[in-house]
Amino acid sequence: MPEFIRLLPPDEARDTLLGAVQAGPLGSETVKVVASLGRVSAADVAAPHALPEFPRSTVDGYAVRAGDTYGATDSLPAYLDLAGEIAMGEASELRLEPGQCALIHTGGVLPSGGSAVVMLEYSQTVESSDARAGGSAAPGVGLIEIFRAVAEGENTIAVGEDIVGGTTVLKKGHLIGPATVGALLALGIVETEVARRPRVALISTGDEVVDPSTATRLGQVRDVNSYTLSAVIEQAGGIPDRYGIVRDDSSALRSLSSIALAACDVVVITAGSSASTRDTTAAVIDSLGSPGVLVHGIHTRPGKPTILGVCQGKALIGLPGNPVSALVNGYMFLIPLIEKLLGTQPRLKASIRARLTTNLASEAGREDWWPVKLATRPEVPAEHGSAPGELPSAEPVFGKSNLIATLATADGIIRIPAAATGLAGGEEVDVYPL
Amino acid sequence: MPEFIRLLPPDEARDTLLGAVQAGPLGSETVKVVASLGRVSAADVAAPHALPEFPRSTVDGYAVRAGDTYGATDSLPAYLDLAGEIAMGEASELRLEPGQCALIHTGGVLPSGGSAVVMLEYSQTVESSDARAGGSAAPGVGLIEIFRAVAEGENTIAVGEDIVGGTTVLKKGHLIGPATVGALLALGIVETEVARRPRVALISTGDEVVDPSTATRLGQVRDVNSYTLSAVIEQAGGIPDRYGIVRDDSSALRSLSSIALAACDVVVITAGSSASTRDTTAAVIDSLGSPGVLVHGIHTRPGKPTILGVCQGKALIGLPGNPVSALVNGYMFLIPLIEKLLGTQPRLKASIRARLTTNLASEAGREDWWPVKLATRPEVPAEHGSAPGELPSAEPVFGKSNLIATLATADGIIRIPAAATGLAGGEEVDVYPL
Repeated sequence: MPEFIRLLPPDEARDTLLGAVQAGPLGSETVKVVASLGRVSAADVAAPHALPEFPRSTVDGYAVRAGDTYGATDSLPAYLDLAGEIAMGEASELRLEPGQCALIHTGGVLPSGGSAVVMLEYSQTVESSDARAGGSAAPGVGLIEIFRAVAEGENTIAVGEDIVGGTTVLKKGHLIGPATVGALLALGIVETEVARRPRVALISTGDEVVDPSTATRLGQVRDVNSYTLSAVIEQAGGIPDRYGIVRDDSSALRSLSSIALAACDVVVITAGSSASTRDTTAAVIDSLGSPGVLVHGIHTRPGKPTILGVCQGKALIGLPGNPVSALVNGYMFLIPLIEKLLGTQPRLKASIRARLTTNLASEAGREDWWPVKLATRPEVPAEHGSAPGELPSAEPVFGKSNLIATLATADGIIRIPAAATGLAGGEEVDVYPL
Repeated sequence: MPEFIRLLPPDEARDTLLGAVQAGPLGSETVKVVASLGRVSAADVAAPHALPEFPRSTVDGYAVRAGDTYGATDSLPAYLDLAGEIAMGEASELRLEPGQCALIHTGGVLPSGGSAVVMLEYSQTVESSDARAGGSAAPGVGLIEIFRAVAEGENTIAVGEDIVGGTTVLKKGHLIGPATVGALLALGIVETEVARRPRVALISTGDEVVDPSTATRLGQVRDVNSYTLSAVIEQAGGIPDRYGIVRDDSSALRSLSSIALAACDVVVITAGSSASTRDTTAAVIDSLGSPGVLVHGIHTRPGKPTILGVCQGKALIGLPGNPVSALVNGYMFLIPLIEKLLGTQPRLKASIRARLTTNLASEAGREDWWPVKLATRPEVPAEHGSAPGELPSAEPVFGKSNLIATLATADGIIRIPAAATGLAGGEEVDVYPL
């Protein structure tokens, strides 16, 4: 007879697990910044110098002393002597005297004396300085008409306007994205300290489970959980380590789990799906250290028989053998666990807003997850009340017991909260990509 | 003087580019299914056999002939002789006769003669068959009380209920996710044909641009675009190929672009940011084949000076030198381009719904992209009208000219559509993670 199980809500189950494991990061390593995408910073990084390092123009135009342009309009332009051109990538000897300007390109160094830049489109070249009516004796290679006044600093970036030298450019715990890679390289930082990736052991159990490359006999099924969960672990920033398949044998499972626990940061056992093997998994977890099993059963579908435990400060997770249950519960528990072990904040999960095509019933108190297919042409009839708008449609994928080939046709999953007794066709839902 | 530019809306610009390049996939290669995550299928794959291959139980319980349970209730149970236990992973010799049942575990093979399974919780073992009042002479290892009737097929999965042998399990053009990996392996398919990943050449130009490892002199800036764009290309499924930095020299750029075009499927030139070097990029693209430049200028911020062209059937993209413009336009054009070259449908992009903390102005007719920081505690004051709810807040990251270190502090970007003149504080926005 199956034992009485107190089913925990998924959020409470996850918090129980996360509260009992040690906080990350588990250690750190130095990597090249160009290979740091998707890693988590293990230390605050200070800018070695300011960005930009010199005052730069943000437009193509003429560097000026701002005061020389005051009052300039189309009908009453200012006339400035062209003192030269600022070459890109070089310090200029040039110093702007009153009444002078210099041709400058976007990104060029603002010359000494210059305080703003007039955009090229608000200027015009006059043939030569002699063309100026009542021209002074000021020497120059030409004369420039300026039709628009600029304020001090206009069309320039000051030293340190992006980042001040010595301030933090990358915080500990930050997930490194393309822009962070760019910011570090812009500062000449080519290596950085990142959190060690947690190593997650995967053990499949079940007398009926065989390697995917095997020709099956009647009654056998191929191991898929080790591989689908490997994908989830990689996506979350961990390193999957597959320990293979053990038979429904308590001592064999205990022995392999003990080896995996010593070598890895997390151990995941995908159970043979019968009640007796689930009990075996729980007993093995309890035997490996305290506190042992913390949660036995989650009020969710799929995934009710999931077991969460902690031994020697490390998490052990027993997942149902059903591939869809294992995958959904992998998303639910493995991702936040790996995030904690990396020392990063739980990430907000991005989703695609869509309109549900049909009613979905759910048991109140239980959190349900449903796979859906997305279609960009709304197929919701108008009688559902709200206009379909431009939202894609989300069509539930129905399949008994959540079958894997059926799930493979889905684009994502939607959540029916525990408090709801279902969702109505035409409702807006958040689809989390699979 | 800068030339007159007709600015295209981003969607029209993208469609113009995609319409002129050859459709993908560019070719295919065979990979191991365990290494196929994130790849795009290059062929339809048929299931070599049905899934499941045998009728399976979906629960722990007793396999029965459904008719034997009809009418069974708590007060009037059915009594069935226990004919044995179905071992996991093996074909059973056992055949259920009328009045018999067999202990079965989740995933076990339904025995011959059995048509449904009664869950363990709706059954009870009676000491021995002698205990039955007026017991018949039927032999058995025990007697089982059944308290609930089951219909034909209840708590079982039929052969082919997940997938029928010979039908398509994976379609050409499908992005392979964890569930697809699982479905293929469940069918014993360990290798599969995927689209060749497009190779994207990256060329940086500019006299002021130096390698990130270089100690800069006054006026120099480090190349970051080659690396931020590499990240975008990898995320989209392409292979970045960095060709280094060329000076502002038309013939040097033409020569390197020509080599890159021959070796790669796409060439991206991040321009020196001045108007003259932009003109150089356009001239080089026009010189490499027809039709040459298709779009010169996009009505978007950042990214206005972007150039899109096609030569010899391959796309060439000239991006602004500003790192943020280059990155945002990389997302805008490189991702759909790579998706097309992979032969897959454009993916719906997942986002995080959030509430904008402040007003953002925008020019009507221009599409703007703003970097934002996300915070999970809503910080929007109640006077903005709508209740903050549980949405995270999205705070725009303000920085002149979109600076890279400033962008690195952002969590994502939001879009202000061309038709809008801005967004109001308190509005719901979709944040696309960076």
